[in-house]
Amino acid sequence: MNKRWSAAIGAIAIGLAASAQTWIWYPGDYEIWLGNKMNNNRTERGAFFPPFWKSDSHYVTVEFSKQLDLAEPEEIEIYAEGKYNVKFDGKLQFGMPRKFTLPAGKHNLNIKVWNQATPPAIYIKGKTVNTDPTWRVTYEDKEWIDESGKASDTSATIYADAGYWNFDDPATPPSQFSLSLEPMDYVSVEEKTADGGRLYDFGKETFGRVVLKNTMGNGVVNIYYGESPEEALDLDHCETLDKIGFSSDNVTDLATNSVSSRASEYTLDNTKAFRYVYVAPENGVNVGDVAMLYEYAPVEYRGSFKCSDPLLNDIWNVGAYTMHLTTREFFIDGIKRDRWVWSGDAVQSYLMNYYLFFDSPAVKRTTRLLRGKDPVTAHINTILDYTFYWFIGIYDYYLYTGDEAFLKEIYPGMKTLMDYVLSRTNKDGMVEGLTGDWVFVDWADFPMSKKGALSFEQILFCKSLETMKLCADVLGDGGDAEKYGKLEASLRAKLLPTFWDEKRQALVHNVENGKKSDQVNKFANMFAINLGFLDQATTDSVMKNVMLNPEVPAITTPYMRFYELESLCARGMQDKVLGEMKDYWGGMLKEGATSFWEKYNPGDKGTEHLAMYGRPYGKSLCHAWGASPIYLIGKYYLGVKPVKPGYKEFSITPDLGGLKWMEGTVPTPNGEISLYVDRDKMKIRATEGEGYLYIMSARTPKSSYGKFEKTGKNSYRLWIDTKDEINIKYKEI
Amino acid sequence: MNKRWSAAIGAIAIGLAASAQTWIWYPGDYEIWLGNKMNNNRTERGAFFPPFWKSDSHYVTVEFSKQLDLAEPEEIEIYAEGKYNVKFDGKLQFGMPRKFTLPAGKHNLNIKVWNQATPPAIYIKGKTVNTDPTWRVTYEDKEWIDESGKASDTSATIYADAGYWNFDDPATPPSQFSLSLEPMDYVSVEEKTADGGRLYDFGKETFGRVVLKNTMGNGVVNIYYGESPEEALDLDHCETLDKIGFSSDNVTDLATNSVSSRASEYTLDNTKAFRYVYVAPENGVNVGDVAMLYEYAPVEYRGSFKCSDPLLNDIWNVGAYTMHLTTREFFIDGIKRDRWVWSGDAVQSYLMNYYLFFDSPAVKRTTRLLRGKDPVTAHINTILDYTFYWFIGIYDYYLYTGDEAFLKEIYPGMKTLMDYVLSRTNKDGMVEGLTGDWVFVDWADFPMSKKGALSFEQILFCKSLETMKLCADVLGDGGDAEKYGKLEASLRAKLLPTFWDEKRQALVHNVENGKKSDQVNKFANMFAINLGFLDQATTDSVMKNVMLNPEVPAITTPYMRFYELESLCARGMQDKVLGEMKDYWGGMLKEGATSFWEKYNPGDKGTEHLAMYGRPYGKSLCHAWGASPIYLIGKYYLGVKPVKPGYKEFSITPDLGGLKWMEGTVPTPNGEISLYVDRDKMKIRATEGEGYLYIMSARTPKSSYGKFEKTGKNSYRLWIDTKDEINIKYKEI
Repeated sequence: MNKRWSAAIGAIAIGLAASAQTWIWYPGDYEIWLGNKMNNNRTERGAFFPPFWKSDSHYVTVEFSKQLDLAEPEEIEIYAEGKYNVKFDGKLQFGMPRKFTLPAGKHNLNIKVWNQATPPAIYIKGKTVNTDPTWRVTYEDKEWIDESGKASDTSATIYADAGYWNFDDPATPPSQFSLSLEPMDYVSVEEKTADGGRLYDFGKETFGRVVLKNTMGNGVVNIYYGESPEEALDLDHCETLDKIGFSSDNVTDLATNSVSSRASEYTLDNTKAFRYVYVAPENGVNVGDVAMLYEYAPVEYRGSFKCSDPLLNDIWNVGAYTMHLTTREFFIDGIKRDRWVWSGDAVQSYLMNYYLFFDSPAVKRTTRLLRGKDPVTAHINTILDYTFYWFIGIYDYYLYTGDEAFLKEIYPGMKTLMDYVLSRTNKDGMVEGLTGDWVFVDWADFPMSKKGALSFEQILFCKSLETMKLCADVLGDGGDAEKYGKLEASLRAKLLPTFWDEKRQALVHNVENGKKSDQVNKFANMFAINLGFLDQATTDSVMKNVMLNPEVPAITTPYMRFYELESLCARGMQDKVLGEMKDYWGGMLKEGATSFWEKYNPGDKGTEHLAMYGRPYGKSLCHAWGASPIYLIGKYYLGVKPVKPGYKEFSITPDLGGLKWMEGTVPTPNGEISLYVDRDKMKIRATEGEGYLYIMSARTPKSSYGKFEKTGKNSYRLWIDTKDEINIKYKEI
Repeated sequence: MNKRWSAAIGAIAIGLAASAQTWIWYPGDYEIWLGNKMNNNRTERGAFFPPFWKSDSHYVTVEFSKQLDLAEPEEIEIYAEGKYNVKFDGKLQFGMPRKFTLPAGKHNLNIKVWNQATPPAIYIKGKTVNTDPTWRVTYEDKEWIDESGKASDTSATIYADAGYWNFDDPATPPSQFSLSLEPMDYVSVEEKTADGGRLYDFGKETFGRVVLKNTMGNGVVNIYYGESPEEALDLDHCETLDKIGFSSDNVTDLATNSVSSRASEYTLDNTKAFRYVYVAPENGVNVGDVAMLYEYAPVEYRGSFKCSDPLLNDIWNVGAYTMHLTTREFFIDGIKRDRWVWSGDAVQSYLMNYYLFFDSPAVKRTTRLLRGKDPVTAHINTILDYTFYWFIGIYDYYLYTGDEAFLKEIYPGMKTLMDYVLSRTNKDGMVEGLTGDWVFVDWADFPMSKKGALSFEQILFCKSLETMKLCADVLGDGGDAEKYGKLEASLRAKLLPTFWDEKRQALVHNVENGKKSDQVNKFANMFAINLGFLDQATTDSVMKNVMLNPEVPAITTPYMRFYELESLCARGMQDKVLGEMKDYWGGMLKEGATSFWEKYNPGDKGTEHLAMYGRPYGKSLCHAWGASPIYLIGKYYLGVKPVKPGYKEFSITPDLGGLKWMEGTVPTPNGEISLYVDRDKMKIRATEGEGYLYIMSARTPKSSYGKFEKTGKNSYRLWIDTKDEINIKYKEI
């Protein structure tokens, strides 16, 4: 894999050096623009299909500024995306200069750029003066002058630190971004003589642009895509299709009306998700051969896992591939559908990402896009729960990366989004689904009320308030920290009195019109456990009466199985969860999955597995939330997690869960933690941070470094503060 | 003049017929986009010079919808600016169809368009189905489906009526807008042998693009613009300039780096304001001849004025020309500088416009652009007073046009702007200039505090609240009407107790730190009179002690002279004002003005008239606010004004003010009121509305229609409810 993105990650974590010039823009604006471009690539049966929530846009006029203090004069080169001016010490320079010589001494350099179509961006290259995140940006400079020519006091201007990514070359400006492309061939083809079409199988779920080779004659070539062969061959119901018209001179994409000149190869403009492609030329036209350009993000697999169980290895590998396919410009839900950025899906992608790519920029990009711009007119993706997941994603991001600069950048947007939430609470300070709010929770196979105050939503809301308090504390805003802390404490204090059912020893689903409902399901209960809302005794009771109670309705989406299995792992039930993973994800593999699905009900048969949303192939067979073993294995089997932000302190609690051995790597911001574990020895190496290794052992364990401390019966811990490999002997219980 | 725009005015006033298809978009979005384009045409000495306030942008994804009920099937043609889809009865259609056949019966048609660069817009042409303002638009359709494929309740979606102007042809979409162009020649040229340059005089202030003809050789041609010959010849200080580089094949605009192929004529891309152009080719290049393309809005002069005084006729004509030059895509302040839309300037342009072009779309466009999009992060143009003028402009617009549809469209933006104002009041409910607010008032030649609560700002604020109440009443929002009515009454009740100085019989300028200031100037006092905040006795006292008191500092901008002279006219001092107009505006004409200026101090000498903002040619010599006689003459000499919204009822109170005779026309939304008045007869014809004619006559006046009613000593009124000309005999007092 290309190392370019991981290099960028390193640069971000350690701060850019003064001479590392890069394209800069108003923070968040690039993501909003790129996100629109990406979200709008979705099609449904040849129709353009944009999201149904508000699409924001970038600030069209942005001023970039920097205070200089130069030991000697230097010449800078100036590149910009947009019409721009250069103001030096308050004086506008003629035209749009490509070069400018800065004299020595203290000076102010301001560059203002206007661009309606793509985000205003600049790139400046000098000996010491270079664009980087230390530049300030504003969309409103308020720099008026009075009649005497005196400039206004501009102290009111609100500046931000410039946004950036990894566009470090003047020749590749941000608006020219594209993912990587790689030619790929099908692995088999089947002639369907009935209508002259051919079914191409690319061997596994993939994503990219179909290439038609050596097309002869004139007419329309129909292309039907399928994640399954059934879908590709069902011309009337497959979710995506293309129609390409060939005439003697031209080729026309009939979905977009775009015309190109005819050549021996025609590569489709738009990308599609598929394993199977059914190419059906109409009379008069004939396609010689078919191939594809695979489109992907050049992320690095920094995490790894291998163990004694081949099925679990397959699950991990297919999970990693599912994550790779859905990790693109942003973390998306699924590659066939919706090809959109959804907050509830993203928050899980983030967690999986920390155990696979540790691509922090991708988390930041996705978080920025989801937030969009003020004013807030609806919940994120219009979904009440998804607003809260957005806050929780920031909580997790800070814990895993320790990136305070991003908290500073995103905090104003957190506040205005929380203002929106707080403006819509009921008299008890709780959230309910109001007009226009989608209360989602999960695609459940049992009836579930979305009315009144749902316990599930209050728990997420409470965690969101905790996130606000955390960020306010980190940023040193004592007033805000107190405000959000009080709100959180007040809501937390109401949770059990409002929702606890003493008889059933569980949180009930909701309170409607002042009446506590009878329904108990796993959603609120498992979040209450996972997020630490319950004491030990209550947790034990909920585990027994809800999570392990077969009478409570089963969860049938990998989406919520993520949290369900996490709640079991966190209680030390790795053996049980290993079985569940092998049954559930192994079940998908048995059905032929080459990537994990949006939903899987083991009871379904044959093509029932493909249907959803009332459509025979509505289900996405490559859905990020399907890949949760990546997270569960990294956090609860390899057992690695941050204890202090950014892995300054980690904890390692390996658990074989019944495996004979396992080995793997968990990435940290600028390093990694590698483990080999079997039933009587371990090898551990942590190249970043320090922390405890916790193990259970039937005899006193021995370490090549440091000394184990006994913490209970068969419980030991070892403080690790070396970057060298540690060899341990112990005896599994 | 081209009748196209006036035709559009008619269509707007009477409502579009069902079959009048036109391009539609999200209301306000087109103005924001076009406004950015226009505001960003300003340059300063060859540098791009955008505004220093926030530039908003259009919604990039917009859904257009219409419920149909068709007697028979019909085919529609579909045009769109952007990538689009067509959804018919909830079902997406393949591709981006150019034609679509609608079946008979009740159906839903939805078209969604995405466009980052220019506003999403559509044009649909069918037999009965055509795009017009009855279509609904939204930027957030919230149309999700659940797992069973059931669509969400979309009642939460907020729709607006589509925006439109006069783009009635599919071949001229809104993004292709341009003003009219007309070739013009200079009237004289002067050889400046010293450096080989020539000074071209176009005879009067004008605006457009310079054309270089038959340029021979290679090198740079420098072009220096001047509103005065001094400016054009002052190479180091003229406000605008261009540098055009000629090489054997190409011509390069060195300010924009744009390259075109060389031909016998080169027309500059960017427009400039000038009367004089100094063309100075560098060595090796020679310009054969120079011309220009005059750029203008094809507005119709619907108002007219002529009288016995040639100087007043000149003033009216130069005022009308000044208005024409500054009435463009929007009403701008000045054509050389700032070429921007400023609210305080615009509110005067609106009023002049009602007596000259009666171009309602121009008022609406300007109002929309100034408002921009939420969130409100600063005052309009960053100026406290300019926020209030924006509200007052809507008050006036409704009075002159009676256009309730526009009130409905703009009301949400009025509310959020007023929320911003109300969130920044002090403990007394008054506004003060806070950090980031520019408290402008006027360019005054005397020191004026901008600190604390200014009486001037409170009066504008109070009128703004009155405007909110008016609109809430018109739109039937009783709750809002009560809320704003209370706020207005409360503020109004505090004005005199806070600012009235009993001894000086005047409103003082401000209250700072609880202390009433000593300063008295005309600003607050004349607004208090004009806006009806004072009773008759107080008004009389203020007239004497402030407005007619030579010890109170004089106003030196036509901007504030507008309100000053209005306050005198409203008190019947037309004779005095006629003298002032002839002195002040006649003074500018004597100085050689061919359009009216931003500022005129009769005491200045020679090139002192050209300087402002610390720059020798900083002053704009064509400034809309310089044209106020257009308004004063129409409203207070011809004496025509609306009494009920949209001239449903008018009043006509002719006042010769010392003239022997006058004649003229005042436009109304769909008609006009024409008068001829001399000292013993009048001819009056009103083709729209009805109302009273008020006259003073030494003997009982006689009319060819109706009957005069005596209302006091020498005072008479006549009810006019005929569209025919009325002849009146009377005797001037």
